[in-house]
Amino acid sequence: MYKNIDREVYKMAKEKKLVEKITPMDEDFAKWYTDVVKNAELIEYSGIRGCMVLRPNGYAIWENIQKVLDKKFKETGVENVYMPMLIPESLLQKEKDHVEGFAPEVAWVTQGGNEQLAERLCVRPTSETLFCDLYSNIVHSYRDLPKVYNQWCSVMRWEKTTRPFLRTSEFLWQEGHTAHATAEEAEERTIQMLNVYASFCEEYLAIPLLKGRKTDKEKFAGAHATYTIEAMMHDGKALQSGTSHNFGDGFAKAFGIQYTDKDNSLKYVHQTSWGMSTRIIGAIIMVHGDDSGLVLPPKIAPKQTVIVPIAMHKEGVLDKANELYEKLKAAGIRVELDDSDKSPGWKFSEQEIQGIPSRIEIGPKDIEAGQCVIVRRDTREKKVVSLDNVVNELEAILEEEQKDMFERAKKHLYESLFTATNYDEFKDTIANKPGFVKAMWCGDVECELKIKEDTTATSRCIPFEQEHISDVCVCCGKPATKMVYWGKAY
Amino acid sequence: MYKNIDREVYKMAKEKKLVEKITPMDEDFAKWYTDVVKNAELIEYSGIRGCMVLRPNGYAIWENIQKVLDKKFKETGVENVYMPMLIPESLLQKEKDHVEGFAPEVAWVTQGGNEQLAERLCVRPTSETLFCDLYSNIVHSYRDLPKVYNQWCSVMRWEKTTRPFLRTSEFLWQEGHTAHATAEEAEERTIQMLNVYASFCEEYLAIPLLKGRKTDKEKFAGAHATYTIEAMMHDGKALQSGTSHNFGDGFAKAFGIQYTDKDNSLKYVHQTSWGMSTRIIGAIIMVHGDDSGLVLPPKIAPKQTVIVPIAMHKEGVLDKANELYEKLKAAGIRVELDDSDKSPGWKFSEQEIQGIPSRIEIGPKDIEAGQCVIVRRDTREKKVVSLDNVVNELEAILEEEQKDMFERAKKHLYESLFTATNYDEFKDTIANKPGFVKAMWCGDVECELKIKEDTTATSRCIPFEQEHISDVCVCCGKPATKMVYWGKAY
Repeated sequence: MYKNIDREVYKMAKEKKLVEKITPMDEDFAKWYTDVVKNAELIEYSGIRGCMVLRPNGYAIWENIQKVLDKKFKETGVENVYMPMLIPESLLQKEKDHVEGFAPEVAWVTQGGNEQLAERLCVRPTSETLFCDLYSNIVHSYRDLPKVYNQWCSVMRWEKTTRPFLRTSEFLWQEGHTAHATAEEAEERTIQMLNVYASFCEEYLAIPLLKGRKTDKEKFAGAHATYTIEAMMHDGKALQSGTSHNFGDGFAKAFGIQYTDKDNSLKYVHQTSWGMSTRIIGAIIMVHGDDSGLVLPPKIAPKQTVIVPIAMHKEGVLDKANELYEKLKAAGIRVELDDSDKSPGWKFSEQEIQGIPSRIEIGPKDIEAGQCVIVRRDTREKKVVSLDNVVNELEAILEEEQKDMFERAKKHLYESLFTATNYDEFKDTIANKPGFVKAMWCGDVECELKIKEDTTATSRCIPFEQEHISDVCVCCGKPATKMVYWGKAY
Repeated sequence: MYKNIDREVYKMAKEKKLVEKITPMDEDFAKWYTDVVKNAELIEYSGIRGCMVLRPNGYAIWENIQKVLDKKFKETGVENVYMPMLIPESLLQKEKDHVEGFAPEVAWVTQGGNEQLAERLCVRPTSETLFCDLYSNIVHSYRDLPKVYNQWCSVMRWEKTTRPFLRTSEFLWQEGHTAHATAEEAEERTIQMLNVYASFCEEYLAIPLLKGRKTDKEKFAGAHATYTIEAMMHDGKALQSGTSHNFGDGFAKAFGIQYTDKDNSLKYVHQTSWGMSTRIIGAIIMVHGDDSGLVLPPKIAPKQTVIVPIAMHKEGVLDKANELYEKLKAAGIRVELDDSDKSPGWKFSEQEIQGIPSRIEIGPKDIEAGQCVIVRRDTREKKVVSLDNVVNELEAILEEEQKDMFERAKKHLYESLFTATNYDEFKDTIANKPGFVKAMWCGDVECELKIKEDTTATSRCIPFEQEHISDVCVCCGKPATKMVYWGKAY
């Protein structure tokens, strides 16, 4: 259709189209999000209800997350395993609270080959029951403890409404499941893994967090205590980004997981589980993205820079671009050279939409002057740098970009934390100010339910770092000792 | 029960029990195999029909396989993605041969949450149909080609009889799926990936292979051509260890995957797929194992050596063992220090059963002499080495062990290849000599069926390296030009 019009006009038209594909954030944040996810080619919708395809740009982010987290896990003694994806209904039912929490949202396999199965099998929504079954078989003595197992897999929860990364019927995650000799050791592991998540998010994803304990209403089905890291998205909403659960000996009693201690007595183990999922990619998008698309933190970005040759067909340009590519690659920078027949402007747009943390422009004049231009994705700042010193310069720029992204996100988080000492103030803040509200709570689930009904906000966590805001519950006015973060959530 | 008897006797009894757990190979190879798999703690049986738990020792082998293969894939331009685990029945049915091949052995999800689904969804037995669906959405122009995607995931095939690693209802694998502009490029990719598998198996797993094409009867459901690598187990049986399929444009036509070429004409893409699974761990066990247990090739072994301190409680022993551990670790050797309260003999047995390629014994006298003892797993050869030179010595031993394992496996393979020029000779050889038979074949499926019925042997492949053994088919006597490897298979 563009065949007979001028090639440059065609290019500009396409470029314009590329940019116009993304709805501005302030106009419609939800639409902005799905536009970014689709146009950055992170995902493709599939014909299967609530299931998405993770395309190379999306999956590569997950691969990098896996690589870093897996190393951090193993440094703490974690061993990886793989458990079956199907759970017999009778096994799922062994722990009462657990089955109540998950049964309504699982997918059931009822036929295998051409036969009707005698017992329904659910596609794992999480694997506590399978790990318990395993531990009951392989844990006998104190010598067999602790068991600190983890698996990387996909799980399925039959969701009614879905959004890419944030809520999908199938998603990828890791789930750690441990068994310990003592309650103290289990609690220690629960907190240890929460801290692994938190430091990973801050250091690699440039996402600041609030750490704390979930209220009983919000805790995991079957857990004694659930700890969480909560991140704040650009629109002021919360995203639960990782959780760590202490089960006490509840599952051990339901599944009969006992060991003979050194003194020959039979004891129940104490268990934990902890997980982080592809949901965290939604957090990266909503914390750092802008109206041009994705902005990836350099430390986790699959491509850290893309070289865009200018006037590519002029003699020497591609040679020099290739030389630069090899130099950066040899220095361990994740670099791509885009020598396709698209125009430079088109390539710039793609780099911005895909959130590649920097691009390097290099054309005949640059080469003559022995230089190139590095453009940061987040600030669009341009810097002319000598080709002799390009590795150091780029590394410094990426490091600064990572740091600045974290600082900006931190500023946004702390500027969006409000305080409320009475219910009117509370409701008004939730309704009008994007962010979280700090307020005192009596500990009663009735107040949580009322707050949710009145404002749609939920308790995000009882933070480890407590403040004393007032003496009474913001909702009911009864005495209160706990400060809670409240907010609307994804 | 052992409480009141002498501690040393107790230890010896337990050690003896450990060794006696494994049935000798020559007595019952199938029993030997399951004994090794279980006692090396590679797997645990689960309560779910035909599904196994991959324990840390087993999963760590798969992780190492993944790490190496994934790197090799990416060097050829492969990009990783993740596709949904469920396939709607209507999508599975789009390619006639494919659905016929897989429909009888899939598990069906028929209920989600509390609802009956309008359409059955199968748990993926393989993902050709999903990739085709994706490619039909994202391939438009020659610029979008080639697509060279791969995913690491689990798949499910509802098997009636199962054996750990070899045939399980659920297994882990990678499946590569590519789309190309031309038939030539697709064929090239098919062969390229077969060669990646072959060189991986030979170089890392020390498993020699026969490469060739599958007969039409044995090819993949929906493929134009299937290529295979066939390995020979210790008992002379074949294990298909990796396959690579060229689909031509059959799937493209069924799914409407077309692109606009440079000349503006609309063309169908040409596709391939290729896979390797946890089955290959079965090959490692059955090619290299012995009556004491597993023997892992050093290049793929999760632990390459284990340090066993002797007279651990004597002063200085544990310190020196720790020092040695740090030294080997720093040199990049995958080392473990076993300082548990088990006896040295028990630890030796565990090292042997688990196939750790070497162990290092170090006691007070060794320390005094500035030395330690390295024991190879495969030959049990002992070498006294100076602690000053332990890194070099161990590296040399592991390298030699890897090489020797490959040479031994190669010798076994080539000594177990027989030739038959007439049907009596063929049947006699298959019945009495463990191994493969090379024989000419007319190309008729009837002969394949007859051979299978008469001998239970199947055509393993039409090898790339052909020999002219005779002019006629070994079965029917009609003219033949193709030499085929025949054998019993897992």
